[in-house]
Amino acid sequence: MTKELVLGIDIGGTNTVWGIVDARGHILSTGKISTKGHPNPETFMQALHTSVKAGASVELIPQITGIGIGAPNGNYYSGCIEFAPNLEWKGVIPLKDLSEKHFQIKTRITNDANAAALGEMQYGAARGMKDFIMVTLGTGVGSGFVANGALIYGHDGLAGELGHVIAVRNGRSCGCGRKGCLETYTSATGVVRTAQELLENYQGKSLLQNVPLSSKEIANAAEKGDELSIQIFDFTAQILGQSLADAVAITSPSAIILFGGLAQSGELLMKPLKKYFEENLLSIYRNKVQILSSQLPESDAAVLGAAGLAWN
Amino acid sequence: MTKELVLGIDIGGTNTVWGIVDARGHILSTGKISTKGHPNPETFMQALHTSVKAGASVELIPQITGIGIGAPNGNYYSGCIEFAPNLEWKGVIPLKDLSEKHFQIKTRITNDANAAALGEMQYGAARGMKDFIMVTLGTGVGSGFVANGALIYGHDGLAGELGHVIAVRNGRSCGCGRKGCLETYTSATGVVRTAQELLENYQGKSLLQNVPLSSKEIANAAEKGDELSIQIFDFTAQILGQSLADAVAITSPSAIILFGGLAQSGELLMKPLKKYFEENLLSIYRNKVQILSSQLPESDAAVLGAAGLAWN
Repeated sequence: MTKELVLGIDIGGTNTVWGIVDARGHILSTGKISTKGHPNPETFMQALHTSVKAGASVELIPQITGIGIGAPNGNYYSGCIEFAPNLEWKGVIPLKDLSEKHFQIKTRITNDANAAALGEMQYGAARGMKDFIMVTLGTGVGSGFVANGALIYGHDGLAGELGHVIAVRNGRSCGCGRKGCLETYTSATGVVRTAQELLENYQGKSLLQNVPLSSKEIANAAEKGDELSIQIFDFTAQILGQSLADAVAITSPSAIILFGGLAQSGELLMKPLKKYFEENLLSIYRNKVQILSSQLPESDAAVLGAAGLAWN
Repeated sequence: MTKELVLGIDIGGTNTVWGIVDARGHILSTGKISTKGHPNPETFMQALHTSVKAGASVELIPQITGIGIGAPNGNYYSGCIEFAPNLEWKGVIPLKDLSEKHFQIKTRITNDANAAALGEMQYGAARGMKDFIMVTLGTGVGSGFVANGALIYGHDGLAGELGHVIAVRNGRSCGCGRKGCLETYTSATGVVRTAQELLENYQGKSLLQNVPLSSKEIANAAEKGDELSIQIFDFTAQILGQSLADAVAITSPSAIILFGGLAQSGELLMKPLKKYFEENLLSIYRNKVQILSSQLPESDAAVLGAAGLAWN
């Protein structure tokens, strides 16, 4: 039987992963190539096309009706990757056009966090929701806002930069050139900065004093009851809870869905986060907005997100 | 010739104004009744119906195809006014049902700021825009967010409370029970609070030292070159510019439209506001987002906004 399928492509700084996905989120075929080391975007797309042709069963490819690409700084409206700091390609890369040229299939592109939101809406924790906020807590903090059942791209395709709302006025320096961005506190690297700051003046003993600091190590230590590590999660939850409460006042979602390493630290983050979130909400929103973890397996989420864009 | 018309109704704390409006924003007939002094919402609606029947030319009424009501705490989804602090009616008032019962015309209801956004989109500064933010600077601060050409109501009809994002952490006490809400700084009353705070320790001479403080008086004094008053506008613009820059990072609008007394103080507010706004924007948004004043005449804006809801 012929099914309608889509090709989801996740372009990361290191690897590009593709998957052929059905409407229920089953990945029927998958593969990857290195994102790095291609002379130019054109040869990258050739290599990607070759990988899909070689890797996918021959009967699947004709059933692909759409391609979705999640990429850093991917712009839905322009179809381009625009000035992505973590890719070798500089400037504006017309990725949608390149994909349509090589695959001869209609292609849509957006950034990673927007793709994640569409993936959750199609296959994950946001099924059936029309108003929610997706927040990705990774090396940076990304977000995708869905309202009235549609992703908010903004007038120029650049909406949803929750990682760059100012969480602390005149706070930590951010890579964007400003100060106090949410990302500098609640990304994996932000949590490590918190650890460094707190360790500096810490008089007690902590498991963190003898390990290379990473958000994973901090989570491990917190799980073993390490006080300083628990304090780090508490501080992170406070900053995140405050900023999420402000975001709720704008779009009034039914849920906020968290994705990424920190979101997987379970109650370590969730428990204090829910407390600070509720404390900071305007009363009309209290006890109405769920905070959920992504329901997509981490290894497949990016491809499923990109696939969600193709269905959308 | 028969035209399609709508009835826009603006329910304020003191008066309720209605207008029969055509698709181009001409108010063909208008009238008002007191919002106060009715035994209950049912008798209020009877009085309103009577006022429209008595006030409008007899040929207009059959041409009305929809009713839009802008009301404090009006909820689009429930069709009710919910716990409006400034109205005599307490609790939840099923205004949409009452209107449809008396007028026998399909009715929609929303809050004042959302109605203002729809009015600007239908008749004013936001014609042709699909992504913009409406901000009303009055006794309080209200807002309506439009994305993908549609008002963001949120999952429960309560979206768009920009007046209650936290502008200053642990800042001024707000009527909502929290601290530092934008409204406590950039509403007309917030500006007066700023004046009071600054006057307390002011060593110089100011025109504000001998007048009853109001945002109008402060604007008058600033226009005459009063230094303290100019400083008050600068401070207000800084707080507003910071919060608007954060809002842009969420919905990436093409414009922000300001309405209300403060918005009408022209360059006094606009000049410093644009400066602080641009300074606080993430670089990808800089020089892309217009800040505009409402294009609707103040006296008609509320009725035109409510009419916009009926067309929408």
